[in-house]
Amino acid sequence: MTERMVIVGGDAAGMSAASQARRIRNPDELEIVAFERGHFTSYSACGIPYWVGGRVEGPDGLIARSPEEHRRRGIDLRMRTEVTELDPGRQRVRIVEREHGEQARWVDYDHLVLATGARPVRPRLPGIDAEGVYGVQTLDDGQALIDALESGEHGRDGTRRAVVVGAGYIGVEMAEALVERGYRVTVVDRGPQPMSTLDPDMGALVYEAMCGMGIETVRGAAVTGILTDEAGRARGVSTGDAEYPADVVVLGLGVRPETELARRAGLPLGPSGGLLTDLAMRVRGQENIWAGGDCVEVLNLVSGRTQHVALGTHANKHGQVIGTNVAGDPEGAATFPGVVGTAVSKVCDLEIARTGLLERQARAVGLQFETVLIESTTRAGYYPGTRPMHVKMLAERRSGRLLGAQIVGRENAGKRVDIAAVALHAGMTVEQMTALDLGYAPPFSPVWDPILVAARKAAAAVREARGG
Amino acid sequence: MTERMVIVGGDAAGMSAASQARRIRNPDELEIVAFERGHFTSYSACGIPYWVGGRVEGPDGLIARSPEEHRRRGIDLRMRTEVTELDPGRQRVRIVEREHGEQARWVDYDHLVLATGARPVRPRLPGIDAEGVYGVQTLDDGQALIDALESGEHGRDGTRRAVVVGAGYIGVEMAEALVERGYRVTVVDRGPQPMSTLDPDMGALVYEAMCGMGIETVRGAAVTGILTDEAGRARGVSTGDAEYPADVVVLGLGVRPETELARRAGLPLGPSGGLLTDLAMRVRGQENIWAGGDCVEVLNLVSGRTQHVALGTHANKHGQVIGTNVAGDPEGAATFPGVVGTAVSKVCDLEIARTGLLERQARAVGLQFETVLIESTTRAGYYPGTRPMHVKMLAERRSGRLLGAQIVGRENAGKRVDIAAVALHAGMTVEQMTALDLGYAPPFSPVWDPILVAARKAAAAVREARGG
Repeated sequence: MTERMVIVGGDAAGMSAASQARRIRNPDELEIVAFERGHFTSYSACGIPYWVGGRVEGPDGLIARSPEEHRRRGIDLRMRTEVTELDPGRQRVRIVEREHGEQARWVDYDHLVLATGARPVRPRLPGIDAEGVYGVQTLDDGQALIDALESGEHGRDGTRRAVVVGAGYIGVEMAEALVERGYRVTVVDRGPQPMSTLDPDMGALVYEAMCGMGIETVRGAAVTGILTDEAGRARGVSTGDAEYPADVVVLGLGVRPETELARRAGLPLGPSGGLLTDLAMRVRGQENIWAGGDCVEVLNLVSGRTQHVALGTHANKHGQVIGTNVAGDPEGAATFPGVVGTAVSKVCDLEIARTGLLERQARAVGLQFETVLIESTTRAGYYPGTRPMHVKMLAERRSGRLLGAQIVGRENAGKRVDIAAVALHAGMTVEQMTALDLGYAPPFSPVWDPILVAARKAAAAVREARGG
Repeated sequence: MTERMVIVGGDAAGMSAASQARRIRNPDELEIVAFERGHFTSYSACGIPYWVGGRVEGPDGLIARSPEEHRRRGIDLRMRTEVTELDPGRQRVRIVEREHGEQARWVDYDHLVLATGARPVRPRLPGIDAEGVYGVQTLDDGQALIDALESGEHGRDGTRRAVVVGAGYIGVEMAEALVERGYRVTVVDRGPQPMSTLDPDMGALVYEAMCGMGIETVRGAAVTGILTDEAGRARGVSTGDAEYPADVVVLGLGVRPETELARRAGLPLGPSGGLLTDLAMRVRGQENIWAGGDCVEVLNLVSGRTQHVALGTHANKHGQVIGTNVAGDPEGAATFPGVVGTAVSKVCDLEIARTGLLERQARAVGLQFETVLIESTTRAGYYPGTRPMHVKMLAERRSGRLLGAQIVGRENAGKRVDIAAVALHAGMTVEQMTALDLGYAPPFSPVWDPILVAARKAAAAVREARGG
């Protein structure tokens, strides 16, 4: 008997699940239907800043696979079709075909995959819906912003100005994009430092570097409203204390899980509002409902808590796991054990990376730890193109176990975070890390890789703390 | 009572040991005397190719610390002083001061550190000692080669030609250096592919890339003699079948442990001729003799065998361990658990890296394994500057444990080997590696990092092999 797999959301997690299930089961065994309410499928939202900045051709360049390609692989992908209700009791979902008369109907499923993604944070501020205020979550968002940037409207002095609200990953990436478009950019953030995904001392390094790039960064300033002109068009932002004029205002405040459907269906949500699943990516307490991608919370293997991490790389892994498990791979169930909290980003030539826990996150779960902060270089000191990099490391006081690492540096600094990420997966102590056999040659690293330098200092700090 | 630590060899391992011991013990407790037979101390031999190529200022730029700096830190470093005999029974070494009348005398020790380094392989070929044949092991070697390159002698047609003998790390790095000096370069190697530190299929990728750079690479051709002119000066090499003219001939054949003193003193040597130590870097069977750096064999944690690996990064680690242990750190003995066989190199913009075991190495220790080879890119496919990279992975058939990884790619490919290196230290399976939380953003990686792509394919190969 043919079973039916219904997928809600046609982006990374959903379509990876579809593709993987199709690799294992043919259409006679498993019918695969995917509903996507938007105009695009399988696109790289994380590529939007680079499209806006003019480095990447878009929107087509950001689309990994077209609807037609999915259909050719035996996946019945329905675009512009919104799922408006889940009915787990009767194993069906209600759909509305937006381009076919808005008619609603129910579709039965044997296996349901929720891959509804995330929605951008959009604070309820006066003027937030004014023309000239742009999000950067969807390809439609990106196109609207690019159209505005290319419309050639200038400020009174001929300078084009942009305000970015939020100095997290998306905020700093958008700051870079707007600098590349020739805008004078002000980033407004309510935190004490940009990049609240870093500890404040590391965020301060980002702040200094952004100042050096000519990006004005306003810290500790919550936006209280969008300034508009007589035509109702955004002309800047206000923080109560000050006003920052702008020709465009970009919202870069991050995203939240899009789980309204799941909530209404009574499915379990975590503290961040993301769906809770087991390690096989099955929604907790459900036999045949699966969830993955930006709409779920995942286990942080270092903190032992679930958290929301919106990253395409996780979404693709979730999709693989779900597809394998829905298809019932005879090799056994696949699992997604969790994350260690790795992220990497850049603003101009500054690279910013982290993995594991920040100080406040470690404290919040009851860990006692030592921290060290070192400065080193990306290559041998004498090799041309060597650039500075800072590494911060957290290690548990009692066990010496690595708890986290943060990197702020220039070219070739960021991806070194992977060394610490693998060490976190493996539960290594910083003392063990001092013996890691990492690739060394002068064009690639100093004779002591910066990660080794940090690990040595962290190991010494742990020994000293225990001895004292 | 003041003890005396005597160090034979004033380069990375020896001087790291001295510095570390001095950090823990003051001169009243521990006298530290180091003997170096050459003109230089604490220099980066691995930087010589970049100095020869003109990218790095030398020789001073390659010297990490001068004799005076060491002396200021309370280390009695004696340059141009050769140790000619070890006498473990009476705890003394015989020295000859080369610049003070060549007089010999005995020096007593409480702790002896052997850090005698390595010597370049120099085959006994007709003409090998001719003028115009250069090694690249010491700073003196480097200066002699640079003087020759800058002397402006040209071949008959105005083209300057160089032959590099050997296509391992030092050979390909020297090929790059000579290309940068404007030479037409021929690399002659007796192996079927360049880079015998890679499997032949990966070496073939290096061969193709070197051809694309205009470097002639002659494979499967053993040099049988150096061609000389009537003045006895080298004018090329002969392989029996063919002759390759050259204005300079560079020997890039790698190095062997310099352990003649140790052999004569009856200290234990391994199959590669390197000193054998315990995990604390104490020479096996000796209470107060330590050894580290290029003169020792180290345990390969994947193969379970000792091997010789001449790399400054290991030498520095050994020195740290020895210095800690000679000083008797109350925190407990330091250890060097072993290597996983990581190495990274480049020739022009080609990056070459490996870790773990090659196929032949895995077979030699009785492992059965699956191999996969994938092609991916260094950044998101749509991001500017993305470059191709190949990853080969070996996994044990029965356990799925990672056994090795090899990378051949362009900019930003090589250092990714560290991910696999840490996974090897941790004993991860390739299935476990598929879940690694690696840094992802379009400028840094495709959504599936190439290492993850290889791990997925390797995991599938292992499942299939076990199922079949």
